[in-house]
Amino acid sequence: MPAADPLLRVRSRSPVRAQLMLILRAIEGFHIGGEVVTLSGLPVEQHRLAQGAASRSVDPNGDYVTGQMYAQVFRLATPRHATPVLFWHGGGMTGAHWESTPDGRQGWLTRFLEAGFDVIVSDAVERGRASWSPFPHIYPGPPLVRTMNEAWEMFRIGPADGYATDPARRVSFDGQQFPSAAFDQFARQFVPRWADHEAMTQASYDALIRHVGPCIVVSHSQGAGFALRAAQLAPHLVRAVVGLEPSGAPAPCGAPLPRHLVVWGDYVHLHPVWRSYREAVDRYVGALPPGTADTLDLPGEGVAGNSHFMMLDRNSDQIAARVIEWLRDVAT
Amino acid sequence: MPAADPLLRVRSRSPVRAQLMLILRAIEGFHIGGEVVTLSGLPVEQHRLAQGAASRSVDPNGDYVTGQMYAQVFRLATPRHATPVLFWHGGGMTGAHWESTPDGRQGWLTRFLEAGFDVIVSDAVERGRASWSPFPHIYPGPPLVRTMNEAWEMFRIGPADGYATDPARRVSFDGQQFPSAAFDQFARQFVPRWADHEAMTQASYDALIRHVGPCIVVSHSQGAGFALRAAQLAPHLVRAVVGLEPSGAPAPCGAPLPRHLVVWGDYVHLHPVWRSYREAVDRYVGALPPGTADTLDLPGEGVAGNSHFMMLDRNSDQIAARVIEWLRDVAT
Repeated sequence: MPAADPLLRVRSRSPVRAQLMLILRAIEGFHIGGEVVTLSGLPVEQHRLAQGAASRSVDPNGDYVTGQMYAQVFRLATPRHATPVLFWHGGGMTGAHWESTPDGRQGWLTRFLEAGFDVIVSDAVERGRASWSPFPHIYPGPPLVRTMNEAWEMFRIGPADGYATDPARRVSFDGQQFPSAAFDQFARQFVPRWADHEAMTQASYDALIRHVGPCIVVSHSQGAGFALRAAQLAPHLVRAVVGLEPSGAPAPCGAPLPRHLVVWGDYVHLHPVWRSYREAVDRYVGALPPGTADTLDLPGEGVAGNSHFMMLDRNSDQIAARVIEWLRDVAT
Repeated sequence: MPAADPLLRVRSRSPVRAQLMLILRAIEGFHIGGEVVTLSGLPVEQHRLAQGAASRSVDPNGDYVTGQMYAQVFRLATPRHATPVLFWHGGGMTGAHWESTPDGRQGWLTRFLEAGFDVIVSDAVERGRASWSPFPHIYPGPPLVRTMNEAWEMFRIGPADGYATDPARRVSFDGQQFPSAAFDQFARQFVPRWADHEAMTQASYDALIRHVGPCIVVSHSQGAGFALRAAQLAPHLVRAVVGLEPSGAPAPCGAPLPRHLVVWGDYVHLHPVWRSYREAVDRYVGALPPGTADTLDLPGEGVAGNSHFMMLDRNSDQIAARVIEWLRDVAT
């Protein structure tokens, strides 16, 4: 970390808009999905687990819940829309990135509450408050953890090799909207992830939708791939899907689907992996029945400079407003 | 999981008290603490990370943040107290347990907001949205994960060997206040933890206090051990400490300290580990200058049946009211 903690900027850059209060009737949290598994035959260990205390026995044999996810619910006193918005984060992230931007501005959670939607922010299976399971006992193997180096280029903040440990030596794309000076603060929220956990993660998302009932899913990156699939599996409950730069798409299905909005930021053409991800998603939505899917290509509409994390970019409020406007048209 | 998902109970048991709205001027989230570490010399891997996509290279060499923690801030429009309340969870848990009880009642987060305190709920280093670091590359070794079997007896819901996978065969203590029928739902929020990470965890808690400024810390179990130490390190900022069943205490220090309230539930005398933890905490607070520490022994005052998780027990509102009453006396 640099000597000047980036959080010191949080306070001064976060002016409270006193005229817009959030009047809530409830804040709740719950976990959903998963199953109980039992481990046996492992040796009992000795660990000191309390400050100043002696070691005690810790027996790893027994029951664990695995495959569950977490959701935090914000219910407005007087919602102006019948269906809540579910925020689904992407790979290696948690629901935290919907709350505040790394440079301390209010995030999409606040903007969607202000727009009159009840909001449910989740942490997907294995990430954040959802918890994760020990390996190799329950999960087969270890996770991947994203380096700051990879994030800089995969999130299209700057070119490959544009990252340096020294913030002063980093190279970002011209016109970049991501608040690059707060990148180290952003990196504090990266969490480990596993490859090949898609079925388990999808199952808990589907359980969440069955529990919540009719809903709108606003999703990002890997989470948007799950959202596109969730709409196929529960078209009677998912009233609209917004995919912010989906990193993948399911196999097509013939059934009628709710309305889709897919949003793309800038610099995709400079990035081979993102080009291939976008091509797959374009193919998927292009094959949907006419009138099902809208694609909002931000640079194509003159909105330049957005990274993969458009909800954190400096123009995040502008993009939130576009999404909310689309939702008002299709989902009320 | 039993066939009837315990979450189905959440809805019916969560009557909204329409007359008590939460009027907030901001909901924010941030990470604080930690440092950047660099890994090198590791092999590049190939993984498929997006739905339906091809594998791509993943290079684990580079920079990571480690040792940071997470905080979620609820700011009231018109707080009735000058200092916010910080909620610090215990070992193997996250801030989620302050939100709702496993049987779907409103938690202490709501009660303290209703009482006029701004509230900051955190996830400690290595848990929940705070993230954790890969081992053996950054952390030296693997975590511990609590079994449901151990939780049943360590949290004093029932006797040793009182747990069974089949909920119908579980034995709980007579008069137990924990909502035992929702125990499987409760177990969904357990997260891995590490032994021997105390210095790193304390450092981030101390950074949080420096960032927030004057505050009250309401803490549980392992988190209460950190809170007692934080009061020693920043007595000018920590205006009061509430420790719900601290599992440990720091070495005594001679400096003046803020007011302390320590709260104990029931069945401690039946549990050798908890007896020894309580003896250590009783010794610590007993050696503080007269008038510094109050101990609220719930069964000693006729409030019987509380587990280690008194903020989730059926009488959680009653205990919250006692703590809020004490805070009004000492901290306004």
